[in-house]
Amino acid sequence: MPVVHVVVLAGGVGGARFLSGLRAAVGGADRITAIVNTGDDLTLHGLRVCPDLDTVMYTLGGGIDTERGWGRAEETWTVKDELAAYDAEPAWFGLGDRDLATHLIRTRMLDAGFALSAVTEALCARWQPGITLLPMSDERVETHVVVDTGEGVRALHFQEWWVRHRAALTPREFVQVGVADARPAAGVLDALADADTLLLAPSNPVVSIGTILGVPGLREAVRECQAPVVGLSPIIAGAPVRGMADKCLPAVGVPTSAEGVGQHYGARNSAGSRTGDGVLDGWLVHNGDRAEIPGVRVRAVPLLMTDAGTTAAMAAAALALAEECRRSA
Amino acid sequence: MPVVHVVVLAGGVGGARFLSGLRAAVGGADRITAIVNTGDDLTLHGLRVCPDLDTVMYTLGGGIDTERGWGRAEETWTVKDELAAYDAEPAWFGLGDRDLATHLIRTRMLDAGFALSAVTEALCARWQPGITLLPMSDERVETHVVVDTGEGVRALHFQEWWVRHRAALTPREFVQVGVADARPAAGVLDALADADTLLLAPSNPVVSIGTILGVPGLREAVRECQAPVVGLSPIIAGAPVRGMADKCLPAVGVPTSAEGVGQHYGARNSAGSRTGDGVLDGWLVHNGDRAEIPGVRVRAVPLLMTDAGTTAAMAAAALALAEECRRSA
Repeated sequence: MPVVHVVVLAGGVGGARFLSGLRAAVGGADRITAIVNTGDDLTLHGLRVCPDLDTVMYTLGGGIDTERGWGRAEETWTVKDELAAYDAEPAWFGLGDRDLATHLIRTRMLDAGFALSAVTEALCARWQPGITLLPMSDERVETHVVVDTGEGVRALHFQEWWVRHRAALTPREFVQVGVADARPAAGVLDALADADTLLLAPSNPVVSIGTILGVPGLREAVRECQAPVVGLSPIIAGAPVRGMADKCLPAVGVPTSAEGVGQHYGARNSAGSRTGDGVLDGWLVHNGDRAEIPGVRVRAVPLLMTDAGTTAAMAAAALALAEECRRSA
Repeated sequence: MPVVHVVVLAGGVGGARFLSGLRAAVGGADRITAIVNTGDDLTLHGLRVCPDLDTVMYTLGGGIDTERGWGRAEETWTVKDELAAYDAEPAWFGLGDRDLATHLIRTRMLDAGFALSAVTEALCARWQPGITLLPMSDERVETHVVVDTGEGVRALHFQEWWVRHRAALTPREFVQVGVADARPAAGVLDALADADTLLLAPSNPVVSIGTILGVPGLREAVRECQAPVVGLSPIIAGAPVRGMADKCLPAVGVPTSAEGVGQHYGARNSAGSRTGDGVLDGWLVHNGDRAEIPGVRVRAVPLLMTDAGTTAAMAAAALALAEECRRSA
């Protein structure tokens, strides 16, 4: 097999697990680049926190709490308890002590003028994730959620909606604050142009993959890249495997189904695309799910990430579908 | 006894212990204001750290590690270990996890535009030290130490000299970086004008009390205040009780003796003062020490702070000497 460069658009927990499987599935000399959602990023107690980048970095670097799926293994919460003793807000987002060191270094580097992509590279020097980790953008793009709180319509930061309110407030709209001024981060467009295969991880289609594709120029670069583009459905039998995509999809008018999400992404072949801005050549759904998407090659395989073996098999199936798309192109 | 307002110039560990004793020695309705050295302050991993203010706040608030004399009781060091795993510099100053929450809140408030005096008041809302805690200045004044490293003359931040090098490099000079632009912090001049008694804690005469008196306008306010001014010698039998005053005094040409330090502070009565900028009316030395300072009333009492009782007795002796100065004025 020739050496290949696989580029993946990914969110947090699901994206991180998928990337673990992909790393196991590719050849030792192959390269993987993950372009990671930063719309969930937030500033807490003066520290810049990038939940999705850190989840991927810790997962691939062996530092993740595998039970929770996020944060550091053997985490302690001393600083959080002390902040609470000062009545310091916000108290609903818990920063672990181990995790906090990452945010201290990131914040210090950002304050010194380094781009988030450079900061991420510096942090990865410790974690050695075995893949190249890129933020979707070096500019700040923060997802806000427009909700009716019962006392009026408000826009909450995504994390406040997700973590504090457990997504219980029905979203009317997702707004990417700052997106108009954002560009793909350093390295992102080069990675897309260099990709042999491009995969959309089974991450949240609205607030992870959708946010990445919302960065000006990024969707176009995906549509124009030479590589086949294959997505993996995060919806199995009408429900998200993890996370709360079912809370997000209705706000953008998309049914919570493998077919609904596949049609939402749409065919890259403009002739087959409903909207003319589709991104898919192939769409992988779970055994038993069906999807008809004009212009997109659909295959059904087990899409479970229950352990390392099934996750690697699922990644291998995505690579195989990409090969199929390539040969038929 | 009428209600009195006692104002104290103080450094870190010694100042904090003395203030504990003073709090026990005064009447329940009496007020104490501490004007604390901030020349030791530093920025570590992007966080603003005020060692002396925190030592006083934690000591009087019941949060101090009484063994070490600084930092929080039951401290843990998870963040420090994680920063070391990232090879983050500097590694020679250990930030404890509990302590770190204080610095996060302080840094966030300073970044938001609050003055250090306002930040200190906010932090004290939790610790309830029972006294008013004021930084000497709201501007940054950082003590640097000019040393010959063997590879040339360098200026080190005081903490680097003190903590990293354990004061092993002979200081040629102490420089207060930023002092020319500094003013006494909000509340400092009012406290001095309102004081019934003014005490100089047995803190380092050079890098604690000397730094406070170096803030433009502060020495003059001490010299002009209505209250008697009594100092307590930090030198007993020719050696500092704690800290490393003996490393600092030679750099300013002062003998390491109770008399040497008392003469260095000098008589406030300009007729008796060598330099015309003295600050003392009374000088308290340890039993067995002697000091002759023209124009200054000297008394010898036990100056030990071995436990709460002896510390309170020592503070009571300082108040008694101040009364003596007042009556003879």
